[in-house]
Amino acid sequence: MPLFHRFVFDVLGQSVSLPVPLLVNVAISVGAYYAGRSLIPKMKPIFINANLYGIDMNKTSKPKIPEAFGVVTGCIFLVSLFLFIPVPFLRNFSATIKGDFPHDKFVEFIAAMLSICCMILLGFADDVLNLRWRDKLYLPTVASLPLLMVYYTNFNSTTVILPKLVRPLLGQSLDIGVLYYVFMGMLAVFCTNAINILAGINGLEVCQSLIIAGSIVLFNVLEILHGHFSDAHEFSLYIMLPYIGATLALWRYNRYCISLGFLNSAILAARVAILSSQLSRVSRCAPAYPSQVFVGDTFNYLSGMTFAVVGILGHFSKTVLLFFIPQVLNFVYSVPQLFRLIPCPRHRMPKHDPATDLLHFSRTQFRVDELNPLGRFCYQVFRHLRLIRCEMDADGKTVTCNNFTIINFCILLTGPIREDRLNRMLVVFQLLCVAFAFTIRYPLAHYFYDTN
Amino acid sequence: MPLFHRFVFDVLGQSVSLPVPLLVNVAISVGAYYAGRSLIPKMKPIFINANLYGIDMNKTSKPKIPEAFGVVTGCIFLVSLFLFIPVPFLRNFSATIKGDFPHDKFVEFIAAMLSICCMILLGFADDVLNLRWRDKLYLPTVASLPLLMVYYTNFNSTTVILPKLVRPLLGQSLDIGVLYYVFMGMLAVFCTNAINILAGINGLEVCQSLIIAGSIVLFNVLEILHGHFSDAHEFSLYIMLPYIGATLALWRYNRYCISLGFLNSAILAARVAILSSQLSRVSRCAPAYPSQVFVGDTFNYLSGMTFAVVGILGHFSKTVLLFFIPQVLNFVYSVPQLFRLIPCPRHRMPKHDPATDLLHFSRTQFRVDELNPLGRFCYQVFRHLRLIRCEMDADGKTVTCNNFTIINFCILLTGPIREDRLNRMLVVFQLLCVAFAFTIRYPLAHYFYDTN
Repeated sequence: MPLFHRFVFDVLGQSVSLPVPLLVNVAISVGAYYAGRSLIPKMKPIFINANLYGIDMNKTSKPKIPEAFGVVTGCIFLVSLFLFIPVPFLRNFSATIKGDFPHDKFVEFIAAMLSICCMILLGFADDVLNLRWRDKLYLPTVASLPLLMVYYTNFNSTTVILPKLVRPLLGQSLDIGVLYYVFMGMLAVFCTNAINILAGINGLEVCQSLIIAGSIVLFNVLEILHGHFSDAHEFSLYIMLPYIGATLALWRYNRYCISLGFLNSAILAARVAILSSQLSRVSRCAPAYPSQVFVGDTFNYLSGMTFAVVGILGHFSKTVLLFFIPQVLNFVYSVPQLFRLIPCPRHRMPKHDPATDLLHFSRTQFRVDELNPLGRFCYQVFRHLRLIRCEMDADGKTVTCNNFTIINFCILLTGPIREDRLNRMLVVFQLLCVAFAFTIRYPLAHYFYDTN
Repeated sequence: MPLFHRFVFDVLGQSVSLPVPLLVNVAISVGAYYAGRSLIPKMKPIFINANLYGIDMNKTSKPKIPEAFGVVTGCIFLVSLFLFIPVPFLRNFSATIKGDFPHDKFVEFIAAMLSICCMILLGFADDVLNLRWRDKLYLPTVASLPLLMVYYTNFNSTTVILPKLVRPLLGQSLDIGVLYYVFMGMLAVFCTNAINILAGINGLEVCQSLIIAGSIVLFNVLEILHGHFSDAHEFSLYIMLPYIGATLALWRYNRYCISLGFLNSAILAARVAILSSQLSRVSRCAPAYPSQVFVGDTFNYLSGMTFAVVGILGHFSKTVLLFFIPQVLNFVYSVPQLFRLIPCPRHRMPKHDPATDLLHFSRTQFRVDELNPLGRFCYQVFRHLRLIRCEMDADGKTVTCNNFTIINFCILLTGPIREDRLNRMLVVFQLLCVAFAFTIRYPLAHYFYDTN
């Protein structure tokens, strides 16, 4: 069986088979990169004129940076998918008359795009209008409804294979029925919001999304090479590659680093990946070029939904969640503030010191006796596990401690740090987590599941 | 054959059949109306805070009115459709296991929503960012791509039945092939932009859209009663009813008239329809309540795409075009300015006279000898047909004439006029055109086509 769907051509009497959809998809993805690269700088004044800008609080000059550029990336990504959809079905078109067009495969693409388009719309509306928290929770749920319906009509497999450990108790597998749909719906809500709360320094949202996207692509390729469900993984590749193309263009203008060409920045990325100490030396003396555009909630929602979509329709939603380890940790760490057990300021991003150009962790202040019992319990647990650094006031009641995000926690470990280096540390952490995820997924899976 | 799809229930041993999808759809549509009615006032300060407002140029006080409320209506409409989709397929769900789920019908809904969602996104981006003209032309084309693919895979009928007159020349019918797809793609672009250029006075966009939507619903019901392609017309109804529900709520806050409750405003609409002279008398003395919100391009794009979607997937795209007569006339009348043959100012809406609170037609000024030959030809034709009112300067070269929209043409016929009465005149014109369209579609069709 060929690894990718191929079209067979007759060239000079020879039958040649080519993976046409994949080649077209790669070409469209490269096109998406170049479209973004040329479009983003042109759109900057338009966004500034429309009052869509934010102040970069982590810079001494406090520059105006155009915001919500995720909508540009999102539109490029959508248009790429629109142009690509007909391609994998080209050879089926002759079959239309006979009535055996694969509508079930086709509807997967359309539903995926519908969910992604909805999230771009919601994200952009959020950037422009500043929606309330609860809208951010129930709108992704509604947006994932068609996705779940497609899952129901096309697969409706709600059986979870159980790890070997619990099999004596619960058997080989467990049909969790409607709970599986609840899980998938929550996955969409989680993915869209998890990236959004691990943000606030130049380039971080885009970097983490690119790493997750790269991991998904790597996972798809590995699975296709192993011959597992290659249809589903091919579907995922067809969506992820244009996403990566469009996002790389955004990264070019959103990252904070030494100004380099694209080739050099790829080398830079590789160096970051291997923790090159040389790079740190270079960046210490070279001039720093911060973000030229902010991505906005639009990008975070778009990315989260894209990952949820391929996870759900590609049947690897649990593996997608494995690539979200830093986001899961950040979410769990943030829970006391997200649920207002501990007072949460409007922004929890690090605090910039203009004198040294270094970032310090941001703080929240509260009186322990004013917390509710659950809040006091969280505070005590976090304090004893040294997950937060607390300073007690003279009266012994008012506590000042860092805000509960892994970005602040990172500064707590390193001390005041430059923004680009903080970003690099978090990127390296994400890469390590992804490596760990692959270890769980492949070598370690033998211990828990029957694999071959 | 029942007129609507019905579900059969067993009640006390009796078999009862009910058109469940239709009933649920009506309930959701009523819900959409009430959701909009309660949500729109709450969103007003949010839009103002986000700098999304326009100045109502046709009022003496020049109030700040929150803009782009089409996005609220659009989201309510989308959520209604999301909630409705599973309903018509409920009885098919048991068939999933057997593999005969009607994916082809399902994909129609999803593709329809995708195109509508894309247009809401584009419209909102346009309202916020003020996109260029060409974006407004090629983005709807791209957004209609999945729609055309669904048409191709589900129907692919590109044969046009010819009128009796030309049959001796061209035969019974003509397969226009790919041109049919070009026509449908252009229909989407036309519908989205045609409503947008017939706008500029309080309530006009919403009124015309409601009349077109009502006409489509009436047409669907007539066709279903005649037993023609009832599946397609049922599909159209399921989309149009929630649209009307969501839009009525918007109309409540966008119209310019005497303040009345909902019941009274329905009576008002009926009176407008019958050209009640009594109403004019009432409105002359009662205080006027102008638009509280502006609908923005978002609403116009959303409406246009919704009509195009039901026209294309319901196989009645030519009939939809019949309901667009005023928009077609306005477009044809506008062509010299749209294609810059005659200089076109940024806004062509009527000019308000604060002293009398009346609207005058707005003007454009140009030198005849500076027009290109085609422009000069248009100018001469329009002037001789008395479609424009021109004033020549003392030097005999500089011409001042009204802008080329039917709104200005209407004022040209009536003289300076109050905004609400102008709106009413245009609404009556649209109603007359719709009546004419039904005359063409039904009684007159006998002369051109074989009907039974």
